Amino acid sequence: MTFYIGLLHYPVYNKRGEIIASAITNLDLHDLARLAKTYGAERFYVITPLADQQDLAKRICQHWVSGFGALYNKDRQEAMSLISVVPTLEKSMEEIKDRQGELPALMVTDAGKNNRERTTYEMAQEIVASTRVIMLLFGTAWGIAQELMRKADYVLAPIVGVSQYNHLSVRAAAAITLDRLFSRFAESQGGR
Amino acid sequence: MTFYIGLLHYPVYNKRGEIIASAITNLDLHDLARLAKTYGAERFYVITPLADQQDLAKRICQHWVSGFGALYNKDRQEAMSLISVVPTLEKSMEEIKDRQGELPALMVTDAGKNNRERTTYEMAQEIVASTRVIMLLFGTAWGIAQELMRKADYVLAPIVGVSQYNHLSVRAAAAITLDRLFSRFAESQGGR
Repeated sequence: MTFYIGLLHYPVYNKRGEIIASAITNLDLHDLARLAKTYGAERFYVITPLADQQDLAKRICQHWVSGFGALYNKDRQEAMSLISVVPTLEKSMEEIKDRQGELPALMVTDAGKNNRERTTYEMAQEIVASTRVIMLLFGTAWGIAQELMRKADYVLAPIVGVSQYNHLSVRAAAAITLDRLFSRFAESQGGR
Repeated sequence: MTFYIGLLHYPVYNKRGEIIASAITNLDLHDLARLAKTYGAERFYVITPLADQQDLAKRICQHWVSGFGALYNKDRQEAMSLISVVPTLEKSMEEIKDRQGELPALMVTDAGKNNRERTTYEMAQEIVASTRVIMLLFGTAWGIAQELMRKADYVLAPIVGVSQYNHLSVRAAAAITLDRLFSRFAESQGGR
């Protein structure tokens, strides 16, 4: 099993349920890149169609991969070098196909309510273990637009703690999702 | 079992291993407050001895608990109202004692290398289930100072993914730790 992660900035919803392109959040790039490195993702695709936001994301990466940040913090360089900035989800799927020889299965996370059947984390662990290539996509702002959600092969169930409160940051949700799906490999290494 | 979480800004190490007071990071407060709410923590203590940093943390909380943020986002208000800003770990432990009638067991997380015996997550799940009151403490910057680490009842093992890369943000580490320790309660409620 080989997997990739993506962070989608368009099409996503704003608070009023309108479709927007969300802004790049610096710490999202850092946190998800470090998670990607920790759990063994091949690449981390930062997806935004906006040229200025692409430039911003690329400048952040450059600082840590080949700029001053690379000298300052080697660990961060290792993580940030996993990032590719792409305009659309389709572009990332094509890139993965070029690398792997096949399109990945698309698994999306969604905290919101929608009509799609949800994949439990238990089921998802089995899917992950038996699928050759996976793209695990996280949304920003108020969640991934339905039009894109319909293209997903699997929609993960929302993360529930002990309360019904269901409003985690994408940074926390990505951490929990990667740990739930991929730490069974860590377990077999005695890591958990 | 009742638990509290804390985020320590002093005493922690900087990159060179010197003891410092780290700066408040806005998104740490948001992300950990939302995690606290999701996993059922009683309070979230933001610990810093610096008056200006205490003021900053309090201003952020006020905005979301009783200022414009409260009108803008009720869910965030619910989470941010769990935050108490305190000068020292001792102060938070005393407050918990006042609320619970006993001092909590102190469980700390530490990604770094140190000489303390580590508690695995499996052991920690059992400890959590059989302990009445727990304070789960997260460090900032390059980790919690040894002088404080020695006061801990339990030091959790570092989070290991599939690689030996071990440099998660405190936001991601807190998310994974809370999910590993407290989602078994969610499981029994059919939440996972």
